[in-house]
Amino acid sequence: MKFTIQKSQLNESIQHVSKAISSRTTIPILTGIKLEANAAGLTLTASDTDISIQAFVPSELDGQTIISVERTGSVVVPAKFFVDIVRKLPSNEVHMEVVDNFKIGIQSGSTEIQLAGLDPEEYPLLPRLAENQTLSMPSEVLRSMIRQVSFAVSANEATPVLTGVLWSLERGTLKFVATDRHRLASIERPIDCPPDLKFHNIVISGKNLNELNKILPEQNTLIDIVVADNQVLFRTGNVLFFSRILDGTYPDTSKIIPQTYKTEAVFAAKPLADAIDRAYLLSREEKTNIVRLTTADDEKSVEISSSSSELGRVTEQLPVERLTGEPLKISFNSKYILDVLKVTDDESMWIGFTGAMSPMILRPANEQGVLHLILPYRTTN
Amino acid sequence: MKFTIQKSQLNESIQHVSKAISSRTTIPILTGIKLEANAAGLTLTASDTDISIQAFVPSELDGQTIISVERTGSVVVPAKFFVDIVRKLPSNEVHMEVVDNFKIGIQSGSTEIQLAGLDPEEYPLLPRLAENQTLSMPSEVLRSMIRQVSFAVSANEATPVLTGVLWSLERGTLKFVATDRHRLASIERPIDCPPDLKFHNIVISGKNLNELNKILPEQNTLIDIVVADNQVLFRTGNVLFFSRILDGTYPDTSKIIPQTYKTEAVFAAKPLADAIDRAYLLSREEKTNIVRLTTADDEKSVEISSSSSELGRVTEQLPVERLTGEPLKISFNSKYILDVLKVTDDESMWIGFTGAMSPMILRPANEQGVLHLILPYRTTN
Repeated sequence: MKFTIQKSQLNESIQHVSKAISSRTTIPILTGIKLEANAAGLTLTASDTDISIQAFVPSELDGQTIISVERTGSVVVPAKFFVDIVRKLPSNEVHMEVVDNFKIGIQSGSTEIQLAGLDPEEYPLLPRLAENQTLSMPSEVLRSMIRQVSFAVSANEATPVLTGVLWSLERGTLKFVATDRHRLASIERPIDCPPDLKFHNIVISGKNLNELNKILPEQNTLIDIVVADNQVLFRTGNVLFFSRILDGTYPDTSKIIPQTYKTEAVFAAKPLADAIDRAYLLSREEKTNIVRLTTADDEKSVEISSSSSELGRVTEQLPVERLTGEPLKISFNSKYILDVLKVTDDESMWIGFTGAMSPMILRPANEQGVLHLILPYRTTN
Repeated sequence: MKFTIQKSQLNESIQHVSKAISSRTTIPILTGIKLEANAAGLTLTASDTDISIQAFVPSELDGQTIISVERTGSVVVPAKFFVDIVRKLPSNEVHMEVVDNFKIGIQSGSTEIQLAGLDPEEYPLLPRLAENQTLSMPSEVLRSMIRQVSFAVSANEATPVLTGVLWSLERGTLKFVATDRHRLASIERPIDCPPDLKFHNIVISGKNLNELNKILPEQNTLIDIVVADNQVLFRTGNVLFFSRILDGTYPDTSKIIPQTYKTEAVFAAKPLADAIDRAYLLSREEKTNIVRLTTADDEKSVEISSSSSELGRVTEQLPVERLTGEPLKISFNSKYILDVLKVTDDESMWIGFTGAMSPMILRPANEQGVLHLILPYRTTN
């Protein structure tokens, strides 16, 4: 293998694949990045067995030579050092060459580096996915769907399936659900796909989706998604992102969503977030995060409050845009509501209550298809 | 105590004093901030016994009322919650009142807070320093002097005096020295002060000086410095910063500074830093940080190199602006040189060598009064 490459392009691809490198892997070959050079360009691969990322640097881009390959071949380079050093090479022109025994020579400006590489034959092959279940969606829709639900996955590895986001597709609607048993987030969006394409019980680690979100382009790009038996592939431009599908059956959450409400309120989202945040500050000191909401008799405001046995009490009158139904006193983990408000771009938030001991539902008032459920904190007073 | 205050001004003073609050203090009263309101304004005090900071909010500023005091008095507020909540209060007008038993009421917009305060009589008094040893210097000179040396203090608490910066003043020259026994940094600057004012063996914790640097104004402001028996006071505008003086006698470092050199070189600072940084990246993997410098026979360049038994080798030819004296091979901890180059604004760096096993001296080529000493790494090859 011998080639000359533009540092900026090499660096961009390294940044993409480096998100799949785990420093804690027990498989030595996976501490490396696999490089494969051929006439078409350079392919970089990294994997931590849970996610695998492949990035391709084409030999030409917009008529400009990005990489000129003198001798095809492949090698595995030590990832940590390679990621750091390429960024700091002195010239934008980088020469790489593999000599005997996977020894790698890198030259840029007056810097010369000799590196011990590893045998590329030892590097695990990426799965080949049958492309019969493929859909395409705009990057920004996928990004926003992930953002709306991924914070609600469980952090508890004891039930692995709950650390993932449930994907289902039916009649052209893609739906994501995440829950940690205390709260649930879901979003559905219409997708342009063949009407008979459907899947269910596809569960993808929330952590992996957050990593995916970091490399998804922000602007309007179509992302191809290939769903296979135990892997999902996301394809964007010259980057492939493979994620394992989590084993296990995701619980049926449809029955816990209430259909009728005893009390309904609409709040301006920002003042609601600010008021809960102030009450949260005090309850945080108690390590409970419990905040209480009490409706006022005039149906024009609610009281947001919290108290700490040591420190004191925060009380606040918060105007509502609309308030109907039964009077209510409810206590909840304020972090859960703040998490929802953090990902909400809508200016108004509708909240439906089914009683002090029953789930509350939050929906952005002007946006279809988004639903957040939060279980109240059961207090005795 | 009862007053109304502008949130922005209160917040600014809280940010200043909060740097003296330790979350790990074993003295309950020191988890708080002491507030004292009188006709002149509001004084805030925080202390972790090592440093104490006092900030004053005047009742009027530029003809504008900042605080109107209805009832003078004082109280100690729980610092952590107070710092966070004031920043997030909904209105710029904040009412505070102390009622029975040090209970504090805070009101801003529709937010009402009741807080359990503490008895201000329990709060330790700040030292009163005799002002016979006072000097004034421009803020930016003090900031830059601290920055030039504080990184070189020892992190080892076993020799407390070396965790500090040695201050001495004689014949109108203020000098700072810091050393951790492997390297030394020193800077001296002429100061406008009475010619007979002098002190020596004043040692101030490097950590404290870094905290001070965070509140020193960047622009041209005079800082008053009062040196007393066991405390130093820095006064800037409405903020007082007290630091304890470290016990112990600082070692005499004057004898280890070489007076003659066997090899001298002048480098462009940025390319030198970049080349050492690349070599450092590899040596970091070995956890030694050792980089070697070898002069070339043509006296026009040096070779910067490092090697790792597992990974390989980085080699680089670096042009010199000037190189005179004996040929040289020297190994050193590259972190030490990178630390020096990080605080150097000069475009050129002069380095004087006294042999492979003896100290090397770095001086910004166009700046007087700055000196860095680094002991080489003693290798056998």
